[in-house]
Amino acid sequence: MKFVDRYERLVRERNTVLCVGIDPALPKQRNTYTIPQKYVYGNDENKARLDFCLDIVDMVKDNAIAIKPNQQYVFGFTKKEHRRLTDLIRKRNMLSILDYKLNDISDTVASAIFHLSEAGYDAVTFNPLAGNLEETIKLAHDSVTAMRGYDLGIFVLTLMSNPEAVTFMKEPMVGRVPMFAFIAQQVKDFEADGCVVGATGHVTGMDIKKIRSIVGPDKIFLVPGVGTQKGDIRKVLMAAGENIIVNVGRDIIYSEDPRERSREYSIKLAIH
Amino acid sequence: MKFVDRYERLVRERNTVLCVGIDPALPKQRNTYTIPQKYVYGNDENKARLDFCLDIVDMVKDNAIAIKPNQQYVFGFTKKEHRRLTDLIRKRNMLSILDYKLNDISDTVASAIFHLSEAGYDAVTFNPLAGNLEETIKLAHDSVTAMRGYDLGIFVLTLMSNPEAVTFMKEPMVGRVPMFAFIAQQVKDFEADGCVVGATGHVTGMDIKKIRSIVGPDKIFLVPGVGTQKGDIRKVLMAAGENIIVNVGRDIIYSEDPRERSREYSIKLAIH
Repeated sequence: MKFVDRYERLVRERNTVLCVGIDPALPKQRNTYTIPQKYVYGNDENKARLDFCLDIVDMVKDNAIAIKPNQQYVFGFTKKEHRRLTDLIRKRNMLSILDYKLNDISDTVASAIFHLSEAGYDAVTFNPLAGNLEETIKLAHDSVTAMRGYDLGIFVLTLMSNPEAVTFMKEPMVGRVPMFAFIAQQVKDFEADGCVVGATGHVTGMDIKKIRSIVGPDKIFLVPGVGTQKGDIRKVLMAAGENIIVNVGRDIIYSEDPRERSREYSIKLAIH
Repeated sequence: MKFVDRYERLVRERNTVLCVGIDPALPKQRNTYTIPQKYVYGNDENKARLDFCLDIVDMVKDNAIAIKPNQQYVFGFTKKEHRRLTDLIRKRNMLSILDYKLNDISDTVASAIFHLSEAGYDAVTFNPLAGNLEETIKLAHDSVTAMRGYDLGIFVLTLMSNPEAVTFMKEPMVGRVPMFAFIAQQVKDFEADGCVVGATGHVTGMDIKKIRSIVGPDKIFLVPGVGTQKGDIRKVLMAAGENIIVNVGRDIIYSEDPRERSREYSIKLAIH
């Protein structure tokens, strides 16, 4: 079964487009937004981070369609630990998206796809600067399906919301179109599953609509930056059209009551 | 002590700029260029890959100044396993560079730097498309030095040699300069340790000289794509000037005799 088909079924079943971003920061790595001290017994960082992630999955399971851990917070997880996380996410009937921002050359991308596939993820994010998008998507769809029976969705960073994205993605022209429009065309041509599109800062409703017009209605927009990062949910939902996943991270996972907070966001992000 | 200082000392001591790229591919993940079957006993993939890496480090220790594992091949290593690798590399008096192609937003980059630093790497590669280069370098130099006593070098993907780099890095203009020249200027302005610069395909001696003229003589060029990938060593050495690291991967690690092969490359890559 394809990632996009599973996505559509889940949105229909749960009537929301909420994705919960899991970034398990250890108390020793920063002062705020860290996993509760109760997880950090003994010296096993991986266990602490994994247990926190598993608990969050259980707490938000009725309110989200997807869970998005970020590689930079789960650095050091073994494939078995990734697998415990992705297995639980699947068991709770959600999709697992690793925010990995993969970018590399050909044989090396193939190695990444191999490991990510064995780790059990349903999709990963991809940074197109190093190229190889077409090859990556073929591997992620065809080879991965042959290997494990379901494909690996690819979400391509298309337009991010940080200020420097103006310099790197909006202003540079590739031929006659801005970089982000060129990337969007690749998403369309190479049949990626979707785009990562920022919702705050310099990104306008017009930008979002332009990307939608290029990639077509069926590609899924993965939108970070709602919640703590204060994106305008309404703007995004209006401009992006159907087929969207809206990520909310720390405002849910580090709240007093992740279950209730995810329920609130789930309702805000209802599609009907 | 700074990465660049340790680099300069090592080049003087060993009179070579050879870096050995370690990409431990499992026999089940592809048909050629895989780690020897003798490492793959039992079911412990991490042990198999780590033991292979450790053996390579010991075999090439007299002939190289740096070892560069690629994240896409060591996916699933715990921090302790990374640490065993980086500790041995340090003990053998070489530098460890993780080819990680880091790219993410601010707090998330900080998390990556935290973990990469604890994993013991001396430097990592960075993909600039997502921005945050200045902040990343500050963290990697100042915060990491405060944390562990030596800094984390940052090598920025500046111009790659794959065909799509023409589309993404050479042709797009940022203001009045090509993307790769803009990135080179950031390397200079934000005081990165060096650039990743391809040596094959469309990349000319003129391109390499242009990057050198922008970043100045002290930045280190990390050049992949020599060896199996048939880069022209002479072209690179002539154009890039001093302060260069030339990576050779599978042509050494998957050869019959990695020790002897690394010795041959070490001599080809002598600077005097």
